[in-house]
Amino acid sequence: MKRFTLVLVAVAALAGVVVSMIPASGQSGKEAAPFVTQIPLGYRDWKLVSVAHEAGNINSIGAVLGNDVAIKAYREKTLPFPDGSIIAALHYSYVPSEENNKIFGRAQSFVPGSPTNIQFLVKDSKKYAATGGWGFGHFNKDGTHGNAAFMKPCFPCHAQAKDSDLVFTHYAP
Amino acid sequence: MKRFTLVLVAVAALAGVVVSMIPASGQSGKEAAPFVTQIPLGYRDWKLVSVAHEAGNINSIGAVLGNDVAIKAYREKTLPFPDGSIIAALHYSYVPSEENNKIFGRAQSFVPGSPTNIQFLVKDSKKYAATGGWGFGHFNKDGTHGNAAFMKPCFPCHAQAKDSDLVFTHYAP
Repeated sequence: MKRFTLVLVAVAALAGVVVSMIPASGQSGKEAAPFVTQIPLGYRDWKLVSVAHEAGNINSIGAVLGNDVAIKAYREKTLPFPDGSIIAALHYSYVPSEENNKIFGRAQSFVPGSPTNIQFLVKDSKKYAATGGWGFGHFNKDGTHGNAAFMKPCFPCHAQAKDSDLVFTHYAP
Repeated sequence: MKRFTLVLVAVAALAGVVVSMIPASGQSGKEAAPFVTQIPLGYRDWKLVSVAHEAGNINSIGAVLGNDVAIKAYREKTLPFPDGSIIAALHYSYVPSEENNKIFGRAQSFVPGSPTNIQFLVKDSKKYAATGGWGFGHFNKDGTHGNAAFMKPCFPCHAQAKDSDLVFTHYAP
């Protein structure tokens, strides 16, 4: 299954197909999980929304990417985001670049270390009606996803960003 | 000319055309500038290479994007980068997100403020033979570019990254 998934990803990336979902374990799609349990296909090829550094305990640096529906909505300032919008946040540990700092002659450069997790916002106003139309997804670097208890705080926190349809990240020009 | 350039960018973005260059002021292309004086077309739609934060005096947060030739080389670990590779570094001022921090209840979130500059590495082993095959470009947010004196330190600094074909940024998975 894993090899098949990888082939699907490669084929889709080459063909530039519209995003769809990879069934993670042959589920029928009828499961009632109120959050995203399947990694959206081809997300690493999506266009840039913005970047961010979360300091403190999180200590991550990340890139936020959007599928074509989300990027179009961002660029045209369409709110709420239309169904089909998917926003991906790729998170990495935040580490100094010894290599760059040696060349620059000072400790100034911070770059991505190991990937830590990838999070998704998937807009489907019917499927995720109970959480503002957004499905929340959290995938660890081994491909496992957050369980119901882990995902529970996502919606109430995002719900505070009501002026931007529950989305924290703004588009960087 | 500016409006025409914007229209060109928009059309190219919609059509997904292969990157080419915008003549900045109707030059014949015969000028002998040893650095990049024209903004590569469509760069904002390119795929993500990585992200970075430069602390200290620079105090910027940035995203590095690559055109298809560069992304293919990065993913296949092809060195040196082939002719036609273009790497773009989009830099923004590094600012705390008051909006996010209010929601998180602590000062942890740093995001892009205003754009500061965009830098390019353009691989053309003949045109830029004197600078390791790379043309260096620096464009301020008003579209003006660095002059010869400003661009002079680019090559000797990048030349120190000889193990990665003079490119500082590594691909983030």
